[in-house]
Amino acid sequence: MKRVMLVVAYDGTNYSGWQLQPGVKTIEGELNRCLSEFLHEDIKVIGASRTDAGVHALGNLAVFDTDAKMPGEKFSYALNQTLPRDIKIQKSMEVDWDFHPRKVNTRKTYEYKIYNAQFPNPVYRLYHHFTYIKLDIDKMKEAAKYFVGEHDFFSFSTFKPEIQSTVRTIYSFEVDEEKIGENAKEIVFRVTGNGFLYNMVRILAGTLIEVGRGRINPEEIPEIMEKRNRDLAGPTAPPQGLVLKQYEIEKES
Amino acid sequence: MKRVMLVVAYDGTNYSGWQLQPGVKTIEGELNRCLSEFLHEDIKVIGASRTDAGVHALGNLAVFDTDAKMPGEKFSYALNQTLPRDIKIQKSMEVDWDFHPRKVNTRKTYEYKIYNAQFPNPVYRLYHHFTYIKLDIDKMKEAAKYFVGEHDFFSFSTFKPEIQSTVRTIYSFEVDEEKIGENAKEIVFRVTGNGFLYNMVRILAGTLIEVGRGRINPEEIPEIMEKRNRDLAGPTAPPQGLVLKQYEIEKES
Repeated sequence: MKRVMLVVAYDGTNYSGWQLQPGVKTIEGELNRCLSEFLHEDIKVIGASRTDAGVHALGNLAVFDTDAKMPGEKFSYALNQTLPRDIKIQKSMEVDWDFHPRKVNTRKTYEYKIYNAQFPNPVYRLYHHFTYIKLDIDKMKEAAKYFVGEHDFFSFSTFKPEIQSTVRTIYSFEVDEEKIGENAKEIVFRVTGNGFLYNMVRILAGTLIEVGRGRINPEEIPEIMEKRNRDLAGPTAPPQGLVLKQYEIEKES
Repeated sequence: MKRVMLVVAYDGTNYSGWQLQPGVKTIEGELNRCLSEFLHEDIKVIGASRTDAGVHALGNLAVFDTDAKMPGEKFSYALNQTLPRDIKIQKSMEVDWDFHPRKVNTRKTYEYKIYNAQFPNPVYRLYHHFTYIKLDIDKMKEAAKYFVGEHDFFSFSTFKPEIQSTVRTIYSFEVDEEKIGENAKEIVFRVTGNGFLYNMVRILAGTLIEVGRGRINPEEIPEIMEKRNRDLAGPTAPPQGLVLKQYEIEKES
Protein backbone atom coordinates (compact mmCIF):
# COMPACT_ATOMS: atom_id res chain seq x y z
CA MET A 1 0.00 0.00 0.00
CA LYS A 2 1.29 3.43 -0.83
CA ARG A 3 0.06 7.02 -0.93
CA VAL A 4 0.32 8.88 -4.23
CA MET A 5 0.01 12.63 -4.68
CA LEU A 6 -1.38 14.15 -7.89
CA VAL A 7 -0.96 17.73 -9.12
CA VAL A 8 -4.29 18.30 -10.86
CA ALA A 9 -5.15 20.94 -13.49
CA TYR A 10 -8.71 21.49 -14.65
CA ASP A 11 -11.05 23.77 -16.49
CA GLY A 12 -13.90 24.22 -14.01
CA THR A 13 -16.41 25.47 -16.62
CA ASN A 14 -18.35 22.23 -16.90
CA TYR A 15 -18.10 21.04 -13.28
CA SER A 16 -20.05 21.69 -10.09
CA GLY A 17 -16.76 22.31 -8.30
CA TRP A 18 -14.26 19.92 -6.73
CA GLN A 19 -16.30 18.24 -4.05
CA LEU A 20 -18.18 15.00 -4.65
CA GLN A 21 -21.96 15.55 -4.82
CA PRO A 22 -24.63 13.12 -5.93
CA GLY A 23 -26.09 13.62 -9.40
CA VAL A 24 -23.63 16.22 -10.70
CA LYS A 25 -20.22 16.19 -12.36
CA THR A 26 -17.37 17.15 -10.02
CA ILE A 27 -13.58 17.02 -10.28
CA GLU A 28 -13.31 14.73 -7.25
CA GLY A 29 -15.96 12.44 -8.74
CA GLU A 30 -14.16 12.18 -12.09
CA LEU A 31 -10.83 11.44 -10.40
CA ASN A 32 -12.39 8.74 -8.20
CA ARG A 33 -14.13 7.18 -11.20
CA CYS A 34 -11.04 7.16 -13.46
CA LEU A 35 -8.69 5.94 -10.73
CA SER A 36 -11.07 3.20 -9.59
CA GLU A 37 -11.62 1.95 -13.15
CA PHE A 38 -7.94 2.02 -13.95
CA LEU A 39 -6.71 0.39 -10.71
CA HIS A 40 -9.67 -1.96 -10.11
CA GLU A 41 -9.79 -0.69 -6.52
CA ASP A 42 -12.30 1.59 -4.81
CA ILE A 43 -10.28 4.82 -4.81
CA LYS A 44 -11.29 7.96 -2.91
CA VAL A 45 -9.01 10.96 -3.37
CA ILE A 46 -8.43 13.64 -0.71
CA GLY A 47 -8.11 17.09 -2.25
CA ALA A 48 -6.16 20.09 -0.98
CA SER A 49 -8.63 22.77 -2.10
CA ARG A 50 -12.36 22.20 -2.64
CA THR A 51 -12.72 24.76 -5.38
CA ASP A 52 -16.19 26.09 -6.21
CA ALA A 53 -18.23 25.49 -9.35
CA GLY A 54 -16.65 27.24 -12.33
CA VAL A 55 -13.26 27.87 -10.66
CA HIS A 56 -10.18 26.59 -12.51
CA ALA A 57 -6.91 25.10 -11.30
CA LEU A 58 -3.43 24.64 -12.65
CA GLY A 59 -2.09 22.96 -9.54
CA ASN A 60 -4.60 21.59 -7.06
CA LEU A 61 -3.35 18.60 -5.05
CA ALA A 62 -4.94 15.25 -4.34
CA VAL A 63 -3.73 12.10 -2.64
CA PHE A 64 -5.00 8.52 -2.71
CA ASP A 65 -3.91 5.13 -1.40
CA THR A 66 -3.39 2.14 -3.63
CA ASP A 67 -2.00 -1.38 -3.69
CA ALA A 68 -0.77 -0.86 -7.26
CA LYS A 69 2.89 -1.66 -7.84
CA MET A 70 3.35 1.12 -10.41
CA PRO A 71 5.95 3.78 -9.40
CA GLY A 72 4.30 6.99 -8.17
CA GLU A 73 5.54 9.16 -11.03
CA LYS A 74 3.97 6.90 -13.67
CA PHE A 75 0.36 7.48 -12.58
CA SER A 76 0.22 10.82 -14.41
CA TYR A 77 0.83 9.19 -17.80
CA ALA A 78 -1.66 6.39 -17.22
CA LEU A 79 -4.42 8.57 -15.76
CA ASN A 80 -4.18 11.20 -18.50
CA GLN A 81 -5.15 8.51 -21.01
CA THR A 82 -8.61 8.12 -19.46
CA LEU A 83 -9.32 11.51 -17.85
CA PRO A 84 -11.52 13.92 -19.83
CA ARG A 85 -9.80 16.73 -21.76
CA ASP A 86 -10.74 19.30 -19.10
CA ILE A 87 -8.96 17.46 -16.24
CA LYS A 88 -5.28 16.53 -16.61
CA ILE A 89 -2.65 15.39 -14.13
CA GLN A 90 0.47 17.56 -14.25
CA LYS A 91 2.62 15.40 -11.98
CA SER A 92 2.34 12.37 -9.72
CA MET A 93 4.65 11.09 -6.98
CA GLU A 94 4.71 8.77 -4.00
CA VAL A 95 4.46 10.63 -0.67
CA ASP A 96 4.73 9.62 2.97
CA TRP A 97 1.99 7.37 4.27
CA ASP A 98 0.65 10.09 6.59
CA PHE A 99 0.88 13.01 4.16
CA HIS A 100 -2.46 14.90 4.10
CA PRO A 101 -2.81 17.81 1.65
CA ARG A 102 -4.95 19.88 4.03
CA LYS A 103 -2.81 19.23 7.12
CA VAL A 104 0.52 20.40 5.78
CA ASN A 105 1.86 23.95 5.59
CA THR A 106 1.55 25.29 2.08
CA ARG A 107 1.96 28.53 0.18
CA LYS A 108 -1.03 28.86 -2.11
CA THR A 109 -1.12 31.13 -5.14
CA TYR A 110 -4.34 32.20 -6.83
CA GLU A 111 -4.91 34.47 -9.81
CA TYR A 112 -8.05 36.42 -10.52
CA LYS A 113 -8.28 37.70 -14.10
CA ILE A 114 -10.45 40.48 -15.49
CA TYR A 115 -11.11 41.35 -19.12
CA ASN A 116 -11.76 45.09 -19.13
CA ALA A 117 -13.06 46.49 -22.41
CA GLN A 118 -16.08 48.10 -24.01
CA PHE A 119 -17.53 44.76 -25.17
CA PRO A 120 -17.11 41.17 -23.96
CA ASN A 121 -14.68 39.06 -25.97
CA PRO A 122 -15.53 35.39 -26.65
CA VAL A 123 -11.97 34.08 -26.31
CA TYR A 124 -11.69 35.59 -22.81
CA ARG A 125 -15.13 34.59 -21.54
CA LEU A 126 -14.18 31.28 -19.91
CA TYR A 127 -11.16 32.36 -17.86
CA HIS A 128 -11.82 36.05 -17.17
CA HIS A 129 -14.46 38.13 -15.46
CA PHE A 130 -15.69 40.74 -17.94
CA THR A 131 -16.43 44.31 -16.98
CA TYR A 132 -16.77 47.37 -19.18
CA ILE A 133 -16.39 49.68 -16.16
CA LYS A 134 -13.13 51.67 -16.17
CA LEU A 135 -10.96 50.55 -13.26
CA ASP A 136 -8.26 52.71 -11.65
CA ILE A 137 -5.26 50.40 -11.49
CA ASP A 138 -3.25 52.64 -9.11
CA LYS A 139 -6.03 52.70 -6.54
CA MET A 140 -6.36 48.91 -6.73
CA LYS A 141 -2.60 48.51 -6.23
CA GLU A 142 -2.79 50.82 -3.22
CA ALA A 143 -5.70 48.88 -1.71
CA ALA A 144 -4.04 45.49 -2.30
CA LYS A 145 -1.10 46.51 -0.08
CA TYR A 146 -3.41 46.58 2.96
CA PHE A 147 -4.16 42.86 2.48
CA VAL A 148 -0.50 41.82 2.76
CA GLY A 149 0.56 40.47 6.16
CA GLU A 150 -1.24 38.64 8.96
CA HIS A 151 -4.81 39.90 9.24
CA ASP A 152 -8.29 38.87 10.30
CA PHE A 153 -10.09 38.32 6.97
CA PHE A 154 -13.55 37.78 8.48
CA SER A 155 -14.99 40.70 6.42
CA PHE A 156 -13.54 39.16 3.26
CA SER A 157 -14.96 35.65 3.55
CA THR A 158 -18.26 33.80 3.50
CA PHE A 159 -19.04 32.72 7.05
CA LYS A 160 -18.67 29.04 7.88
CA PRO A 161 -19.50 28.13 11.48
CA GLU A 162 -16.88 25.36 11.63
CA ILE A 163 -13.97 27.75 10.95
CA GLN A 164 -12.15 28.49 14.20
CA SER A 165 -9.96 31.39 13.14
CA THR A 166 -10.36 33.86 10.31
CA VAL A 167 -6.76 35.05 10.64
CA ARG A 168 -4.62 34.31 7.60
CA THR A 169 -1.29 35.57 6.24
CA ILE A 170 -0.94 36.97 2.76
CA TYR A 171 2.68 37.00 1.58
CA SER A 172 2.20 38.98 -1.61
CA PHE A 173 -0.58 40.59 -3.60
CA GLU A 174 0.27 41.84 -7.10
CA VAL A 175 -2.05 43.87 -9.30
CA ASP A 176 -0.99 43.96 -12.97
CA GLU A 177 -2.55 45.27 -16.11
CA GLU A 178 -1.67 44.55 -19.70
CA LYS A 179 -3.03 46.24 -22.79
CA ILE A 180 -4.49 43.70 -25.20
CA GLY A 181 -5.60 45.33 -28.39
CA GLU A 182 -7.32 48.64 -28.89
CA ASN A 183 -9.22 49.80 -25.76
CA ALA A 184 -8.94 46.43 -24.03
CA LYS A 185 -6.97 45.44 -20.94
CA GLU A 186 -6.34 42.32 -18.93
CA ILE A 187 -6.12 42.96 -15.20
CA VAL A 188 -4.61 40.23 -13.02
CA PHE A 189 -4.66 39.95 -9.22
CA ARG A 190 -2.00 37.46 -8.07
CA VAL A 191 -2.14 36.56 -4.40
CA THR A 192 0.02 34.19 -2.36
CA GLY A 193 -0.78 33.24 1.23
CA ASN A 194 -0.67 30.49 3.83
CA GLY A 195 -4.38 29.85 3.46
CA PHE A 196 -7.61 31.34 2.20
CA LEU A 197 -11.06 31.33 3.78
CA TYR A 198 -14.21 30.33 1.90
CA ASN A 199 -14.72 32.66 -1.11
CA MET A 200 -11.89 34.88 0.18
CA VAL A 201 -10.00 35.40 -3.09
CA ARG A 202 -13.21 36.19 -4.96
CA ILE A 203 -14.30 38.65 -2.24
CA LEU A 204 -10.86 40.31 -2.25
CA ALA A 205 -11.20 40.58 -6.05
CA GLY A 206 -14.75 41.94 -5.75
CA THR A 207 -13.53 44.49 -3.20
CA LEU A 208 -10.64 45.62 -5.43
CA ILE A 209 -13.09 46.07 -8.31
CA GLU A 210 -15.18 48.36 -6.05
CA VAL A 211 -11.98 50.26 -5.27
CA GLY A 212 -11.08 50.44 -8.97
CA ARG A 213 -14.45 51.94 -9.86
CA GLY A 214 -14.30 54.43 -6.99
CA ARG A 215 -16.94 53.06 -4.62
CA ILE A 216 -14.45 52.14 -1.89
CA ASN A 217 -11.31 54.16 -1.12
CA PRO A 218 -8.05 52.25 -0.60
CA GLU A 219 -7.68 53.82 2.88
CA GLU A 220 -10.99 52.27 3.95
CA ILE A 221 -9.61 48.72 3.72
CA PRO A 222 -8.09 48.58 7.26
CA GLU A 223 -11.39 49.84 8.69
CA ILE A 224 -13.43 47.23 6.77
CA MET A 225 -11.03 44.58 8.08
CA GLU A 226 -11.30 45.79 11.66
CA LYS A 227 -15.10 45.92 11.71
CA ARG A 228 -15.42 42.19 10.89
CA ASN A 229 -18.50 42.77 8.76
CA ARG A 230 -18.89 40.96 5.44
CA ASP A 231 -21.37 43.60 4.19
CA LEU A 232 -18.70 46.31 4.14
CA ALA A 233 -16.48 44.49 1.63
CA GLY A 234 -17.22 44.18 -2.09
CA PRO A 235 -19.31 41.42 -3.68
CA THR A 236 -18.01 37.92 -4.41
CA ALA A 237 -16.54 38.21 -7.91
CA PRO A 238 -17.73 35.56 -10.43
CA PRO A 239 -15.96 32.16 -10.38
CA GLN A 240 -14.65 31.93 -13.95
CA GLY A 241 -11.98 34.62 -13.30
CA LEU A 242 -10.37 32.53 -10.57
CA VAL A 243 -7.59 30.00 -11.02
CA LEU A 244 -5.73 28.11 -8.32
CA LYS A 245 -2.20 28.41 -9.69
CA GLN A 246 0.05 26.61 -7.27
CA TYR A 247 0.44 24.79 -3.97
CA GLU A 248 3.96 24.86 -2.61
CA ILE A 249 4.55 22.50 0.27
CA GLU A 250 6.70 24.14 2.92
CA LYS A 251 9.64 22.16 4.20
CA GLU A 252 9.15 21.28 7.86
CA SER A 253 11.61 23.14 10.03
CA MET B 1 -29.72 52.24 -47.38
CA LYS B 2 -26.27 52.14 -45.83
CA ARG B 3 -23.33 49.75 -45.46
CA VAL B 4 -22.20 48.89 -41.94
CA MET B 5 -18.89 47.25 -41.04
CA LEU B 6 -18.56 44.97 -38.01
CA VAL B 7 -15.38 43.97 -36.20
CA VAL B 8 -16.22 40.43 -35.10
CA ALA B 9 -14.58 38.36 -32.34
CA TYR B 10 -15.39 34.68 -31.87
CA ASP B 11 -14.38 31.47 -30.23
CA GLY B 12 -14.36 29.03 -33.14
CA THR B 13 -14.49 25.89 -30.95
CA ASN B 14 -18.16 25.15 -31.54
CA TYR B 15 -18.46 26.32 -35.17
CA SER B 16 -17.81 24.75 -38.55
CA GLY B 17 -15.85 27.82 -39.54
CA TRP B 18 -16.97 31.20 -40.89
CA GLN B 19 -18.61 30.28 -44.16
CA LEU B 20 -22.33 29.54 -44.43
CA GLN B 21 -23.01 25.83 -44.95
CA PRO B 22 -26.30 23.99 -44.77
CA GLY B 23 -27.04 21.99 -41.64
CA VAL B 24 -24.11 23.20 -39.50
CA LYS B 25 -23.43 26.14 -37.18
CA THR B 26 -21.17 28.78 -38.74
CA ILE B 27 -20.17 32.31 -37.72
CA GLU B 28 -21.60 33.78 -40.93
CA GLY B 29 -24.85 31.90 -40.36
CA GLU B 30 -25.21 33.18 -36.79
CA LEU B 31 -24.53 36.77 -37.86
CA ASN B 32 -27.06 36.55 -40.70
CA ARG B 33 -29.66 35.05 -38.38
CA CYS B 34 -29.20 37.59 -35.55
CA LEU B 35 -29.04 40.59 -37.90
CA SER B 36 -32.10 39.47 -39.89
CA GLU B 37 -34.15 38.88 -36.74
CA PHE B 38 -33.11 42.16 -35.21
CA LEU B 39 -33.57 44.32 -38.33
CA HIS B 40 -36.56 42.46 -39.85
CA GLU B 41 -34.69 42.44 -43.17
CA ASP B 42 -33.00 39.58 -45.01
CA ILE B 43 -29.37 40.33 -44.12
CA LYS B 44 -26.38 38.59 -45.72
CA VAL B 45 -22.99 39.62 -44.38
CA ILE B 46 -19.78 39.63 -46.45
CA GLY B 47 -16.79 38.54 -44.40
CA ALA B 48 -13.13 39.49 -44.79
CA SER B 49 -11.65 36.14 -43.83
CA ARG B 50 -13.42 32.79 -44.14
CA THR B 51 -11.70 31.17 -41.18
CA ASP B 52 -11.72 27.38 -40.91
CA ALA B 53 -13.55 25.23 -38.37
CA GLY B 54 -12.06 25.68 -34.90
CA VAL B 55 -10.07 28.85 -35.74
CA HIS B 56 -10.69 31.89 -33.51
CA ALA B 57 -10.81 35.61 -34.22
CA LEU B 58 -10.42 38.80 -32.28
CA GLY B 59 -10.95 41.08 -35.26
CA ASN B 60 -12.48 39.57 -38.38
CA LEU B 61 -14.47 42.04 -40.50
CA ALA B 62 -17.94 41.80 -42.00
CA VAL B 63 -20.14 44.25 -43.84
CA PHE B 64 -23.88 44.27 -44.55
CA ASP B 65 -26.42 46.63 -46.09
CA THR B 66 -29.49 47.83 -44.26
CA ASP B 67 -32.34 50.32 -44.42
CA ALA B 68 -32.20 50.78 -40.64
CA LYS B 69 -31.94 54.37 -39.44
CA MET B 70 -29.72 53.48 -36.47
CA PRO B 71 -26.26 55.12 -36.52
CA GLY B 72 -23.53 52.68 -37.59
CA GLU B 73 -21.71 52.68 -34.26
CA LYS B 74 -24.84 51.58 -32.34
CA PHE B 75 -25.19 48.20 -34.06
CA SER B 76 -22.49 46.66 -31.83
CA TYR B 77 -24.51 47.30 -28.65
CA ALA B 78 -27.77 46.03 -30.13
CA LEU B 79 -26.30 42.93 -31.79
CA ASN B 80 -24.35 41.86 -28.70
CA GLN B 81 -27.66 41.50 -26.87
CA THR B 82 -28.78 38.66 -29.12
CA LEU B 83 -25.52 37.07 -30.33
CA PRO B 84 -24.34 33.92 -28.50
CA ARG B 85 -21.61 34.27 -25.88
CA ASP B 86 -18.97 32.92 -28.26
CA ILE B 87 -19.54 35.60 -30.95
CA LYS B 88 -19.35 39.29 -29.98
CA ILE B 89 -19.09 42.47 -32.02
CA GLN B 90 -16.13 44.61 -30.95
CA LYS B 91 -16.99 47.67 -33.03
CA SER B 92 -19.44 48.79 -35.72
CA MET B 93 -19.37 51.75 -38.08
CA GLU B 94 -20.89 53.03 -41.29
CA VAL B 95 -18.57 52.64 -44.30
CA ASP B 96 -18.69 53.78 -47.93
CA TRP B 97 -21.34 52.15 -50.05
CA ASP B 98 -18.76 50.32 -52.19
CA PHE B 99 -16.49 49.18 -49.36
CA HIS B 100 -15.77 45.45 -49.71
CA PRO B 101 -13.68 43.76 -46.99
CA ARG B 102 -11.94 41.40 -49.44
CA LYS B 103 -11.26 44.03 -52.09
CA VAL B 104 -9.41 46.55 -49.95
CA ASN B 105 -5.74 46.54 -48.99
CA THR B 106 -5.29 45.30 -45.44
CA ARG B 107 -2.54 44.31 -43.08
CA LYS B 108 -3.62 41.09 -41.40
CA THR B 109 -2.16 39.80 -38.15
CA TYR B 110 -2.51 36.20 -37.02
CA GLU B 111 -1.18 34.48 -33.92
CA TYR B 112 -0.48 30.79 -33.58
CA LYS B 113 -0.09 29.62 -29.97
CA ILE B 114 1.52 26.46 -28.67
CA TYR B 115 1.41 25.02 -25.16
CA ASN B 116 4.67 23.15 -24.74
CA ALA B 117 4.92 20.99 -21.63
CA GLN B 118 5.14 17.41 -20.45
CA PHE B 119 1.36 17.04 -20.12
CA PRO B 120 -1.61 18.84 -21.72
CA ASN B 121 -3.24 21.52 -19.58
CA PRO B 122 -7.03 21.88 -19.61
CA VAL B 123 -7.08 25.69 -19.42
CA TYR B 124 -4.89 25.93 -22.53
CA ARG B 125 -6.61 23.26 -24.60
CA LEU B 126 -9.07 25.50 -26.48
CA TYR B 127 -6.71 28.23 -27.69
CA HIS B 128 -3.35 26.45 -27.95
CA HIS B 129 -1.89 23.54 -29.84
CA PHE B 130 -0.35 21.15 -27.33
CA THR B 131 2.93 19.38 -27.88
CA TYR B 132 5.23 17.71 -25.37
CA ILE B 133 8.10 17.71 -27.88
CA LYS B 134 10.96 20.05 -26.92
CA LEU B 135 11.18 22.87 -29.47
CA ASP B 136 14.34 24.86 -30.17
CA ILE B 137 13.18 28.47 -30.06
CA ASP B 138 16.35 29.92 -31.63
CA LYS B 139 16.07 27.68 -34.66
CA MET B 140 12.40 28.63 -35.09
CA LYS B 141 13.31 32.33 -34.89
CA GLU B 142 16.00 31.81 -37.50
CA ALA B 143 13.61 29.98 -39.83
CA ALA B 144 10.85 32.59 -39.40
CA LYS B 145 13.15 35.29 -40.82
CA TYR B 146 13.13 33.56 -44.22
CA PHE B 147 9.35 34.06 -44.45
CA VAL B 148 9.57 37.85 -44.12
CA GLY B 149 9.33 39.80 -47.40
CA GLU B 150 7.64 39.14 -50.74
CA HIS B 151 7.78 35.44 -51.56
CA ASP B 152 5.96 32.71 -53.43
CA PHE B 153 4.22 30.75 -50.67
CA PHE B 154 2.97 27.92 -52.91
CA SER B 155 4.81 25.30 -50.78
CA PHE B 156 3.18 26.72 -47.66
CA SER B 157 -0.47 26.64 -48.72
CA THR B 158 -3.20 24.20 -49.62
CA PHE B 159 -3.72 24.35 -53.37
CA LYS B 160 -6.86 26.04 -54.63
CA PRO B 161 -7.22 26.10 -58.44
CA GLU B 162 -8.97 29.49 -58.45
CA ILE B 163 -5.99 31.28 -56.86
CA GLN B 164 -4.09 33.22 -59.51
CA SER B 165 -0.94 34.10 -57.61
CA THR B 166 0.67 32.49 -54.59
CA VAL B 167 2.96 35.48 -54.01
CA ARG B 168 2.31 37.28 -50.73
CA THR B 169 4.23 39.76 -48.57
CA ILE B 170 4.93 39.10 -44.91
CA TYR B 171 5.83 42.29 -43.04
CA SER B 172 6.89 40.70 -39.76
CA PHE B 173 7.11 37.29 -38.15
CA GLU B 174 7.83 37.16 -34.41
CA VAL B 175 8.54 34.00 -32.45
CA ASP B 176 8.20 34.43 -28.68
CA GLU B 177 8.30 32.09 -25.75
CA GLU B 178 7.17 32.62 -22.21
CA LYS B 179 7.70 30.35 -19.26
CA ILE B 180 4.39 29.49 -17.57
CA GLY B 181 4.92 27.44 -14.48
CA GLU B 182 7.36 24.65 -13.88
CA ASN B 183 8.49 22.95 -17.11
CA ALA B 184 5.79 24.61 -19.23
CA LYS B 185 6.11 27.22 -21.97
CA GLU B 186 3.82 29.15 -24.22
CA ILE B 187 5.24 29.68 -27.70
CA VAL B 188 3.62 32.32 -29.90
CA PHE B 189 4.11 32.91 -33.64
CA ARG B 190 2.85 36.39 -34.58
CA VAL B 191 2.73 37.10 -38.30
CA THR B 192 1.61 40.21 -40.18
CA GLY B 193 1.20 40.30 -43.95
CA ASN B 194 -0.79 41.72 -46.85
CA GLY B 195 -2.62 38.44 -47.31
CA PHE B 196 -2.47 34.74 -46.56
CA LEU B 197 -3.23 31.77 -48.78
CA TYR B 198 -5.50 28.91 -47.75
CA ASN B 199 -4.11 27.21 -44.59
CA MET B 200 -0.92 29.27 -44.95
CA VAL B 201 -0.52 30.37 -41.32
CA ARG B 202 -1.17 26.85 -40.05
CA ILE B 203 1.34 25.40 -42.56
CA LEU B 204 3.95 28.03 -41.61
CA ALA B 205 3.30 27.08 -37.94
CA GLY B 206 3.54 23.37 -38.76
CA THR B 207 6.81 24.00 -40.61
CA LEU B 208 8.28 25.97 -37.70
CA ILE B 209 7.37 23.13 -35.35
CA GLU B 210 9.30 20.74 -37.64
CA VAL B 211 12.24 23.17 -37.45
CA GLY B 212 11.91 23.41 -33.65
CA ARG B 213 12.09 19.63 -33.26
CA GLY B 214 15.05 19.34 -35.65
CA ARG B 215 13.42 17.70 -38.68
CA ILE B 216 13.89 20.72 -40.96
CA ASN B 217 16.90 23.06 -40.78
CA PRO B 218 16.24 26.81 -40.89
CA GLU B 219 18.52 27.11 -43.96
CA GLU B 220 16.28 24.71 -45.90
CA ILE B 221 13.35 27.17 -45.91
CA PRO B 222 14.43 29.14 -49.05
CA GLU B 223 14.87 25.86 -50.94
CA ILE B 224 11.43 24.58 -49.86
CA MET B 225 9.98 27.90 -51.03
CA GLU B 226 11.75 27.76 -54.37
CA LYS B 227 10.70 24.19 -55.18
CA ARG B 228 6.98 25.04 -54.99
CA ASN B 229 6.12 21.68 -53.47
CA ARG B 230 3.65 21.44 -50.58
CA ASP B 231 5.08 18.09 -49.50
CA LEU B 232 8.42 19.62 -48.52
CA ALA B 233 6.89 21.94 -45.89
CA GLY B 234 5.61 20.81 -42.49
CA PRO B 235 2.07 19.59 -41.77
CA THR B 236 -0.93 21.90 -41.31
CA ALA B 237 -0.92 22.65 -37.56
CA PRO B 238 -4.27 22.10 -35.75
CA PRO B 239 -6.86 24.91 -35.94
CA GLN B 240 -7.40 25.69 -32.24
CA GLY B 241 -3.95 27.35 -31.93
CA LEU B 242 -4.82 29.96 -34.56
CA VAL B 243 -6.41 33.34 -33.93
CA LEU B 244 -7.04 36.11 -36.44
CA LYS B 245 -5.94 39.07 -34.36
CA GLN B 246 -6.44 42.13 -36.49
CA TYR B 247 -7.31 43.58 -39.87
CA GLU B 248 -5.88 47.03 -40.48
CA ILE B 249 -7.32 48.78 -43.50
CA GLU B 250 -4.61 50.61 -45.41
CA LYS B 251 -5.31 54.20 -46.38
CA GLU B 252 -5.54 54.58 -50.13
CA SER B 253 -2.59 56.53 -51.48
